Amino acid sequence: MLADQPFLRIPGPTPVPPSVQRAMNQPMIGHRDQETKDLLHRIKPKLKPVFGTDQDILMIAGSGTGGLETAVVNAVRPGDEVLVIVTGAFGDRFAQICTEYDITMHRIDVEWGEAAEPETVETYLKQHPEIKAVFATFCETSTGVLNPVYELSQVIKQQSDALFIVDGVSAIAGAEMKMDDWGIDILVTGSQKAMMLPPGLTFATVSERAWDVIENNKRPSFYFDLTKYRDQLENDSTPFTPAISLLFGLEQVLSLIETEGLGAVYNRHLTMMNMTRAAFKELGIPLLTSDKAASPTVTAIAPTDFDPEALRKVLKNEFNLTVAGGQKHLKGQIFRIGHMGYCSPADMLQTIGIIEVALNKIGKPIELGSGTRAAQEILLGGS
Amino acid sequence: MLADQPFLRIPGPTPVPPSVQRAMNQPMIGHRDQETKDLLHRIKPKLKPVFGTDQDILMIAGSGTGGLETAVVNAVRPGDEVLVIVTGAFGDRFAQICTEYDITMHRIDVEWGEAAEPETVETYLKQHPEIKAVFATFCETSTGVLNPVYELSQVIKQQSDALFIVDGVSAIAGAEMKMDDWGIDILVTGSQKAMMLPPGLTFATVSERAWDVIENNKRPSFYFDLTKYRDQLENDSTPFTPAISLLFGLEQVLSLIETEGLGAVYNRHLTMMNMTRAAFKELGIPLLTSDKAASPTVTAIAPTDFDPEALRKVLKNEFNLTVAGGQKHLKGQIFRIGHMGYCSPADMLQTIGIIEVALNKIGKPIELGSGTRAAQEILLGGS
Repeated sequence: MLADQPFLRIPGPTPVPPSVQRAMNQPMIGHRDQETKDLLHRIKPKLKPVFGTDQDILMIAGSGTGGLETAVVNAVRPGDEVLVIVTGAFGDRFAQICTEYDITMHRIDVEWGEAAEPETVETYLKQHPEIKAVFATFCETSTGVLNPVYELSQVIKQQSDALFIVDGVSAIAGAEMKMDDWGIDILVTGSQKAMMLPPGLTFATVSERAWDVIENNKRPSFYFDLTKYRDQLENDSTPFTPAISLLFGLEQVLSLIETEGLGAVYNRHLTMMNMTRAAFKELGIPLLTSDKAASPTVTAIAPTDFDPEALRKVLKNEFNLTVAGGQKHLKGQIFRIGHMGYCSPADMLQTIGIIEVALNKIGKPIELGSGTRAAQEILLGGS
Repeated sequence: MLADQPFLRIPGPTPVPPSVQRAMNQPMIGHRDQETKDLLHRIKPKLKPVFGTDQDILMIAGSGTGGLETAVVNAVRPGDEVLVIVTGAFGDRFAQICTEYDITMHRIDVEWGEAAEPETVETYLKQHPEIKAVFATFCETSTGVLNPVYELSQVIKQQSDALFIVDGVSAIAGAEMKMDDWGIDILVTGSQKAMMLPPGLTFATVSERAWDVIENNKRPSFYFDLTKYRDQLENDSTPFTPAISLLFGLEQVLSLIETEGLGAVYNRHLTMMNMTRAAFKELGIPLLTSDKAASPTVTAIAPTDFDPEALRKVLKNEFNLTVAGGQKHLKGQIFRIGHMGYCSPADMLQTIGIIEVALNKIGKPIELGSGTRAAQEILLGGS
């Protein structure tokens, strides 16, 4: 095994492109100096299309979970009732945060591996008109499901005035997002997924109607108070010292996305999803999710006749290829391949090729090359 | 002016050493993989001497202010009364956070530029035995004061059972800190000061008696819940995705500190402080703080016969040297030189040399070389 050739194919953190790495190596600058203002001024407009919004994208130093908590503490007023749609571990995290804050929470649990159904949400909201905010996960990282947030938004808007708050952590910059057109009120994400940066930066953006709620909210947080970030960003600044090296990298990420074209970025992710799914179908190894529910950024595989942990061990030890295991009750039941950010169809051919060899090594005899060929056919077909 | 030679001499963010920059360029790793566990396992013991404690140092992705809020939400129970000692902008930030949380707050305001007096705190605590926590700032970045936290701790311990909570943001790894011996209960700091890293990581460490309080506290925070970080770090992990590139850098920072020797690091900072102070005394330009109150990491200069903003402008535009201005009511009244982290006595000779030239340019005629010579004499004398 070549020592210095790690393959990181988990659903985040993801590999950092060399040019982004170089951008992060720029000499440190003062966070109150003109250089930082200029940097934020350049970044601001380029972030908006990635989120599909005309609103400013606010940047907070912290993990994605900090972003989820930010959404909760800003948008939910004491006494408000909320609905959390849980399709996996990260929907559950929204619920945990609401619990921590003693919020009156309704919860729709969807079987892990399936997407939320708009009809279920519609019926629930009809019965509970008092609900003031609905929380959902766009890509549920733990299962590889892409929830239909546009359709969910439509039924929410029809039934109530509730805010629609979406965790976009492992989707934004990998899956199409039209926040304004789709009627999403608060959208948060993290840096270490399709945004191609190291972890440590979380993003939040807010609709006009959500700002109205936030303005009238007594927030029990100082650091996560979004009004501070909004007011400062209007002057190309931040309320607290920003993660400057990540901002250096972010500018280059946005330049890479602009060069490739956002539509091409989304298509690349769809191609990688289709390649991965075609390969495992060809190999006769079950996928956790349906085609309809599948996320372009991560694919979960649920084998029935071999131990996914045995496969992961061989991939890691013999090929330096890291794929993710299952979380919570799916631990030991599935493995997950991240195909987002700095990852190409060519990388997926390599990943699938390695997995085919490793499957034979763990005593799961498959026809070598058959999965790869199925993926190649997708790539050749251009879909 | 050489284009690619910036001099960043503000009290944070500070320059990042080349070897630390290189360490941060390591390929990304999975936050739940063995590599991250191994990294945290190596970092843990090496952090302890820097904080002067046997306790684990908890690491949170976020700005220093996130660390301050973490201390407040974990240590203060609803209904508790606290005392905040305010000696400048960052003491005031502790107070702002307490205000945000509707905490019953007592406040001792010290004139900016002076250090807190233990006697005043002693008298106050005698009159207010109900106070459950005392907040102080070790180095007050806005004035260059190093508050006498050991002496403060002694009077607090004599008068009450109150927890003593210290903001070490612009001091830790630059000024001697013996958390355990000095009886500090919670100590927080940030990455972008004497810790020689980019901003984005905040550190917190907690005494046994403070853990007892925290255990019995209902915290209104999910992300900043220190018990989660403690429980995970015991298994060399973190509750949420850590700022991995900063952890890569941190390991190298700790190696640099170990190589130089912590005592030598502290002496280097004292030498830089003494050089800076000697230079401005020789130039007849007043310092904001007394020798006794001075911090080894940042020096504030309070000129009476020239505009510090005019000096900062020439330094920036003609020499690419950034020093900080004053904050709040000291804006336009002072300038501040950061001498911490990746900064040497040789750098201070350069900084002082440039400032002497710039002073003449703005019409403040001083004898060229006289301040430099005073600094050199300190360096030659080894103090």
